[in-house]
Amino acid sequence: MQPIKIAFIGAGNVAWHLAPALQAKGAQVVEVVNRSPEKALSLVEKLSSAKVKADLDFRNSEADWVFITAPDAQIEPLASQIQLAPRQVLLHTSGSQPLGILQNAHLQSGVFYPLQTFSKEKCIDFRKVHFYIEGSNTPVERKLLSLARKLSPLVSTATSQQRLGLHMAAVFACNFPNHLLLMAQSVMEQYELDFTALKPLVEEMVEKAFALGPEKAQTGPAIRKDTNTIQRHEALLESSAMQSVYQLLSQSIQKKGKD
Amino acid sequence: MQPIKIAFIGAGNVAWHLAPALQAKGAQVVEVVNRSPEKALSLVEKLSSAKVKADLDFRNSEADWVFITAPDAQIEPLASQIQLAPRQVLLHTSGSQPLGILQNAHLQSGVFYPLQTFSKEKCIDFRKVHFYIEGSNTPVERKLLSLARKLSPLVSTATSQQRLGLHMAAVFACNFPNHLLLMAQSVMEQYELDFTALKPLVEEMVEKAFALGPEKAQTGPAIRKDTNTIQRHEALLESSAMQSVYQLLSQSIQKKGKD
Repeated sequence: MQPIKIAFIGAGNVAWHLAPALQAKGAQVVEVVNRSPEKALSLVEKLSSAKVKADLDFRNSEADWVFITAPDAQIEPLASQIQLAPRQVLLHTSGSQPLGILQNAHLQSGVFYPLQTFSKEKCIDFRKVHFYIEGSNTPVERKLLSLARKLSPLVSTATSQQRLGLHMAAVFACNFPNHLLLMAQSVMEQYELDFTALKPLVEEMVEKAFALGPEKAQTGPAIRKDTNTIQRHEALLESSAMQSVYQLLSQSIQKKGKD
Repeated sequence: MQPIKIAFIGAGNVAWHLAPALQAKGAQVVEVVNRSPEKALSLVEKLSSAKVKADLDFRNSEADWVFITAPDAQIEPLASQIQLAPRQVLLHTSGSQPLGILQNAHLQSGVFYPLQTFSKEKCIDFRKVHFYIEGSNTPVERKLLSLARKLSPLVSTATSQQRLGLHMAAVFACNFPNHLLLMAQSVMEQYELDFTALKPLVEEMVEKAFALGPEKAQTGPAIRKDTNTIQRHEALLESSAMQSVYQLLSQSIQKKGKD
């Protein structure tokens, strides 16, 4: 059987991890396009047989699948410029963008959304990444499901609407808590304490939130209505931008929380 | 050698986990006092040789250490009512309360602060709990360090001021992120998606925040200044209390973040 041949448009965080992972599972990454050719070259150098491509005309390319991994706002404009042969399938990997922005340009299209946070400096274990798949027709969807299952046992289909919900939930579950860890770090440093001492606490919080559910797992001064501690913390945060975050989240916990 | 003998005032989440853990390491829990005697009895039933005590006079008690594990606001009033013999040491386990509130009442006192989130329904692995110790004098501090080291390799001393910082950092690192997971859960349910699908994402976020530092680890629409996605999320959250949390945290990420 021929290996699946793939091209990437975009050489950012997602392609950086996804392209080598797909190659390791037997796919062949043939081409990488990027606005900055140096970035495309860095990715190509991680792969065995890819080359940098300078334009968006794939009609004579070997690629079976063309993945757009560019920033969300660029997906639709890129899709309208890409030229494909009828056998080729156009894909994106975005949580927030509907499948429809590809369908306007191409008959065969799909979404291959990894629910994960990607940074170039941090390796990803794809077996722990949940993939959400959508295809413009059943054969495309089946092929995408099977491609995702090579990487991870956690594979589902999701509509564009559900994916938007997933993406928003991920902002609350991942992007915002990471920012709160930045605030915790600045508090620790202010008191000459080691930030990494917080790691077991944060790990236990995650463990507990998924074991008991976050409502039952909530602890801390706000849910206990411990006004004295809340006021002392707020006073310590005086003149810091963290004070308004502290106030809003404490109020929010008290509104949803139980005594 | 005689086992250390301990009494607990308070039978809430902390005592619920700490008393059996200390007993497992050779200490003897002799008495439990609680405003609700039924709660004291539930804890006593988990222990081998403790009994419920109804008053705060410990002068004839066998206890060497008296732990106050009551809610923060009750520690100081309790301390002023407790009667101890000179050989006995009075302790609390609170992050937010200074050692001084015990010293006013008793010569020998200390703090035994576990940096962890406790819920009765969830077991705690104390080997992963960081303990912060403070003693009114060097012998007390030494004994407390050695008691804590029976439970965990993660033991440090901390001043009352540092402990206040630790406690505030823990609110940002644990209590607030748990509340954001509650919001993520409500989004997932609204889109008929399984909340637990987010677990690998949240675990990777924690892993990455401590590996790269949270500033470098930040991803998502806010740090990318992806106004389009931010506006779509905000529109979906219209008429929800989550909208103001989304807005404030997105703005905060953009102010601290790099492009």
